[in-house]
Amino acid sequence: MPKISQKGQRMPASPIRKLTPFADKAKLEGKKVYHLNIGQPDIETPEGMLNAIKNIDFKVWAYTASEGTLSYRKKLVEYYNKLGYNITPENIIVTTGGSEAITIAMMSCLDEGDEVIIPEPFYANYNGFANQTDVVVKPILSYIENGFALPPISEFEKLITPKTKAIIICNPNNPTGYLYSKEELEALKELALKYDLYIFSDEAYREFCYDGRTFISPMHLDGIDENVIVMDTVSKRYSACGARLGCLITKNRAVIAAGLKFAQARLSPGMVEQIAGEAAVDTPDEYFNAVNTEYTKRRDTLVSALNKIEGVYCPNPGGAFYVVAKFPIDNADKFCQWMLESFSYENQTVMMAPATGFYSTPGAGTNEVRMAYVLNNDDLNKAMACLAEGLKAYPGRI
Amino acid sequence: MPKISQKGQRMPASPIRKLTPFADKAKLEGKKVYHLNIGQPDIETPEGMLNAIKNIDFKVWAYTASEGTLSYRKKLVEYYNKLGYNITPENIIVTTGGSEAITIAMMSCLDEGDEVIIPEPFYANYNGFANQTDVVVKPILSYIENGFALPPISEFEKLITPKTKAIIICNPNNPTGYLYSKEELEALKELALKYDLYIFSDEAYREFCYDGRTFISPMHLDGIDENVIVMDTVSKRYSACGARLGCLITKNRAVIAAGLKFAQARLSPGMVEQIAGEAAVDTPDEYFNAVNTEYTKRRDTLVSALNKIEGVYCPNPGGAFYVVAKFPIDNADKFCQWMLESFSYENQTVMMAPATGFYSTPGAGTNEVRMAYVLNNDDLNKAMACLAEGLKAYPGRI
Repeated sequence: MPKISQKGQRMPASPIRKLTPFADKAKLEGKKVYHLNIGQPDIETPEGMLNAIKNIDFKVWAYTASEGTLSYRKKLVEYYNKLGYNITPENIIVTTGGSEAITIAMMSCLDEGDEVIIPEPFYANYNGFANQTDVVVKPILSYIENGFALPPISEFEKLITPKTKAIIICNPNNPTGYLYSKEELEALKELALKYDLYIFSDEAYREFCYDGRTFISPMHLDGIDENVIVMDTVSKRYSACGARLGCLITKNRAVIAAGLKFAQARLSPGMVEQIAGEAAVDTPDEYFNAVNTEYTKRRDTLVSALNKIEGVYCPNPGGAFYVVAKFPIDNADKFCQWMLESFSYENQTVMMAPATGFYSTPGAGTNEVRMAYVLNNDDLNKAMACLAEGLKAYPGRI
Repeated sequence: MPKISQKGQRMPASPIRKLTPFADKAKLEGKKVYHLNIGQPDIETPEGMLNAIKNIDFKVWAYTASEGTLSYRKKLVEYYNKLGYNITPENIIVTTGGSEAITIAMMSCLDEGDEVIIPEPFYANYNGFANQTDVVVKPILSYIENGFALPPISEFEKLITPKTKAIIICNPNNPTGYLYSKEELEALKELALKYDLYIFSDEAYREFCYDGRTFISPMHLDGIDENVIVMDTVSKRYSACGARLGCLITKNRAVIAAGLKFAQARLSPGMVEQIAGEAAVDTPDEYFNAVNTEYTKRRDTLVSALNKIEGVYCPNPGGAFYVVAKFPIDNADKFCQWMLESFSYENQTVMMAPATGFYSTPGAGTNEVRMAYVLNNDDLNKAMACLAEGLKAYPGRI
């Protein structure tokens, strides 16, 4: 019997999905499970986008250009230039979700053994994509005590070697919700210019900034056009995760040329999705205002409920729809599994993602948990009541 | 300015798309271009599949399970078990097109520097996927003289090293249209068992077998369940290339477990596509009968027209919708470009794919061209008349 690859063995399991069998078992036992583990919003997809699907009128479901249809890329330019990105359709490669934007960026810019610095905790799948592309992740710790702000630039410099090719930031951050300031981005810019590094800017949560905060992209900064690659997706912006529609944006022509070859190998992004994506750009502002109001309310509910639980600390993040909270527990993996397997309160329990999966440094985040506030306020309150009881009863409480 | 990766530099350009700028220019000059270069069928997608898209009734366009919805996988089992594959939903990972089935299979089974043997000419993007995954392609020549039949097993054995992990076959073959016989597959099976190799079976063209021939898959053979991985797509079967919906099938549980981790990293295949794919399985037999009749007619038209041109030889293939023909020319790359750039007949020309891009052995296929018979009979005849004139006028004729 032939063996699977070392790469397949090394590939990390998804931290947000690995407890799924325990959740399934809990449900079979009749428990109600509140899912705070995954960033699947319950917000409705804009009607215009869904109508675009229903109104398709082609006869042949054909390939599109590998870089995406010109029509969709033109519409995207409209969207991005309203944000001040100052791009043209030639700066865009349409991808299968944000995931493919990340892998194409990595393959176009980094070789086997090359290093990418990522502030941690970070989006867990960067580990998987780095494993796929034989890239080495160099994590740099950020801390819950200051809300997971960008670590000092001097800490980045300590990690830089001749193999360092890129820095990844996710802004607003998944899993911490932290929104990077203009000053932090300017500091990263100076670093990138000094050491000739790419800045990969994962902006999946761009629309989710709270309390009147402004989103700043490296695309807004002067003098680093050749260094910046934006990795984007419609998944969260329009609550359209199942569309698998994203894009890679850069003004660096060599990266576009290389990326296009990877895009050509897989032929085409989805055709129906691009039609829907084009319609999505015309989503009215009211949609986003309502979503923003809803998420702000949920964040406030969650953060306030968490901080009321004895021994729990949760910063109040400026964006995205996640929080990372510190619990009075021995081990987040054990605790999250225990909540599903061995605990219930009024026949309910909560599924959360242990933060360990979002760190690359061994031992980091063992008392931290990520929660996505993708449930309505009422369910969030019930989930928090349940969590509070769970933390009281957990045998590994410290 | 940071540099792109070696991998990005090495990545081969798609041989079927690299002449696109010349075709675009020809069109701008007012020439009619017959596209025989790409496997984009003009056949209509089944109505049931398109209606499934139009009738979607969800409110949130959500992620599905990473391995695909259970509902779609169950329906696929219905389809595959009618063919005698004897599988369960657990043997399937739904992928973003056949392309992703290939990359997931490669990453799950082969490490950097591992070798895969592929009879050539082969589907050009295998080269790209091998480059992405740092896998080494060991080509083994098949020859136009015997219709591109499987090379003798002794030739395969000469290439086997401790690094050899897999053989890829595409059946019916793209680009040659060759349909492998039961005897050829049995011989490959013995080889795979003897050397503990995977057989990657790319079956994108399964439905396209002509003259009453029967398609045989390695899935039909006894005793190699652990070795066989099928890489499939709905692209050609239902003329739904733009759906980007495929799957990986294997009874090898370790491969499914590894593949699932890669699938989880990219979260989910498309949701709307899986709904459409489910409806597609109920496409009536009449659809396939009509398509088969149409393609048989086209193949006959094309092959007969080609063999009537002086100096041209084209075998009559048993499947798919491609032929590779030998032309009396010095260089297929130059010729195909010349046809677009410098030639017209009654203000028309033909776009074809130089076969060189489908070979990995340097210098092979320089006088061969791939054509896809994806145009109606009338257009095919016009294209062939045009090609005959082109071959007469080409300065590099030999």
